[in-house]
Amino acid sequence: MIAGLRLGSTYAGIRKINKDDLTIIEICEGGNAAAVFTQNAFCAAPVTIARQHLTSKKPRYLLINAGNANAGTGTIGQNACLTTCQTLADQTACSVSEVLPFSTGVIGQQLDTTKFTSAIPRALSALDENGWESAANAIMTTDTRPKLVTAKHDLEGDTITITGIAKGAGMIRPDMATMLAFIATDAEIAPDQLHACLKSAVERSFNRITIDGDTSTNDACVLIATGKSGVRIDNINQIQPVIDDVCIQLAQAIVRDGEGATKFITIEVNGGRSRDESKMVAYTIAHSPLVKTAFFASDPNWGRLLAAIGRAGITDLDVAKISISLGNIKLIDAGQPAASYREELGATVMAQSDINVHVDLNRGKFSETVWTCDFSYDYVRINAEYRT
Amino acid sequence: MIAGLRLGSTYAGIRKINKDDLTIIEICEGGNAAAVFTQNAFCAAPVTIARQHLTSKKPRYLLINAGNANAGTGTIGQNACLTTCQTLADQTACSVSEVLPFSTGVIGQQLDTTKFTSAIPRALSALDENGWESAANAIMTTDTRPKLVTAKHDLEGDTITITGIAKGAGMIRPDMATMLAFIATDAEIAPDQLHACLKSAVERSFNRITIDGDTSTNDACVLIATGKSGVRIDNINQIQPVIDDVCIQLAQAIVRDGEGATKFITIEVNGGRSRDESKMVAYTIAHSPLVKTAFFASDPNWGRLLAAIGRAGITDLDVAKISISLGNIKLIDAGQPAASYREELGATVMAQSDINVHVDLNRGKFSETVWTCDFSYDYVRINAEYRT
Repeated sequence: MIAGLRLGSTYAGIRKINKDDLTIIEICEGGNAAAVFTQNAFCAAPVTIARQHLTSKKPRYLLINAGNANAGTGTIGQNACLTTCQTLADQTACSVSEVLPFSTGVIGQQLDTTKFTSAIPRALSALDENGWESAANAIMTTDTRPKLVTAKHDLEGDTITITGIAKGAGMIRPDMATMLAFIATDAEIAPDQLHACLKSAVERSFNRITIDGDTSTNDACVLIATGKSGVRIDNINQIQPVIDDVCIQLAQAIVRDGEGATKFITIEVNGGRSRDESKMVAYTIAHSPLVKTAFFASDPNWGRLLAAIGRAGITDLDVAKISISLGNIKLIDAGQPAASYREELGATVMAQSDINVHVDLNRGKFSETVWTCDFSYDYVRINAEYRT
Repeated sequence: MIAGLRLGSTYAGIRKINKDDLTIIEICEGGNAAAVFTQNAFCAAPVTIARQHLTSKKPRYLLINAGNANAGTGTIGQNACLTTCQTLADQTACSVSEVLPFSTGVIGQQLDTTKFTSAIPRALSALDENGWESAANAIMTTDTRPKLVTAKHDLEGDTITITGIAKGAGMIRPDMATMLAFIATDAEIAPDQLHACLKSAVERSFNRITIDGDTSTNDACVLIATGKSGVRIDNINQIQPVIDDVCIQLAQAIVRDGEGATKFITIEVNGGRSRDESKMVAYTIAHSPLVKTAFFASDPNWGRLLAAIGRAGITDLDVAKISISLGNIKLIDAGQPAASYREELGATVMAQSDINVHVDLNRGKFSETVWTCDFSYDYVRINAEYRT
């Protein structure tokens, strides 16, 4: 519960199965909000409109639907999105630009605005400070479980609360933002500080996960500060670590519930000449279908790790300097197969559900960590059957 | 059959199942050969050694094994590779640097040189100008069928022959070369012209296919000109198109036999500001697991095409200019859903086994075409069970 924030969810009939698919989040007057959005050029109608609205007014309402992404829908989709925002604005006596829309679901289908707008009164009447869990459920698509994280933080005797929800579970390779995530705190934070805080937290969390390498058209992440705790944050560093931590927990929850995922994999690359270089190697490993199917099979087929590192696109990569470990088992030592390695040791690590891969490029001092999951039959099944 | 070239295959016991896994190709004296290799930094021992040998002497023998890639094997692997080359050199009274080694199979396991070298006499006694089909079978790993292409070309009354073999079928996203491909002609072509011809053909064929985006540690492609037809090529343009065509046929055969593939997909991107830009869009579509699973499901879920184009990394991409077609069905027209589109039309194209995707970026005059396949349960099964 975050004082100053109420959430209401209902079933509008946008998704086929009878499960809440519409959520309204109401922000108290005086609250601030910051948001970051997908960098996908084909961004969805709600992303375009939310970006515009955010530049003109402080948001009072977030209007979120699951089941239809309203992406690739052209001007018809833009108008449909504006109609839903206007309907909510009319019923709450606010301006249309005080409403930020968010959608997730199938791309390329027109939104049914009749179903959508007729459900708005039901969502409004459901508004409740205790609506977080219902909202975490209502924004899910192929997610198998809701993602909800709460943290309390002590500031010289005062306590502030941070709560966030997020949804995955496919088309996940966030770029500047994630799929949908909504995080709120009762602290008072000025808009520019709030935006900096969000960007920094997202960079360390949602921008370091990947399920399938596909960046969504609808990614969005919102951070709200209601100020209702009465605790004012003058220096954002006071709470950055706890915001980071909530975002990292939500991001990791998305990976753990990735489509078809059976393993949670942490890929840490050290010794790069730059952050970008280490990140590039980490993502190349994380996106390799061969690495991901080996993890699914619990097969310590480390040759695939090595092949991925080798094709990551680093110029002048000296493989004779590289070391690779799986958990605490050394695989490659200075470019040579580790003398201590035995297949049974690798198999023991691979059998675990949480696996760490450590790569040391030994050519610089920059490290990056990326979280990902394996690639299973169920990923194929879920995405082959998605629209049926 | 190419005059001046003999091929011999046998079972050395390097792969588990009893199926030929060792091939020797003998090039007549006076024949020329050119080769291109993987750009993967973690290249295999045979790639390193073949590159060295090629700089010092004209090759007389190609020594090829399947079942073990001899990659990620360090100095032990290098020595094992040299031992096999030396054994062949001793038995044929040639110099070790006249032998080019090639390996394909599991990465990260040491080669059994005893099994390997004791099979060399059997492969030598099998040498035959008609050995192409046996060789095409012996170099296969997860391939389900051999890839063999032959073309005859008429040059002002003289006929030359070009024959090639290749193998896939996973870790396929060639970069400057492919998995293994060996192409030969009985024309006489000077070494520098032969190399230029190979580079050009590879760029239009093997470097335009992808199965899973994973560039192998062992990619290699060799073009041999025995000169035994007596037809001398002074201007490479006389035969470049027919060499290109043989390479394209082999490359497409690799994609059609991609691990778990049920569909053959041609992705054509027009209207880029540069070749690189069009290629980047084509590969982003070709590598998207979501696009690939939609093809597997025969689901015209074109929103995934659009999402892939949007995340391809093109700066200032104006989506309002983009058009997308599936076969001859227009999906997106100037950034808007095509008015003529009906789901049934898309479903008809998706039900076919050969599918064309056309993207027009409408921002320049450069086109690129990439060939790929879908992503099925069988890809996961094949790669989860690969070493078992």
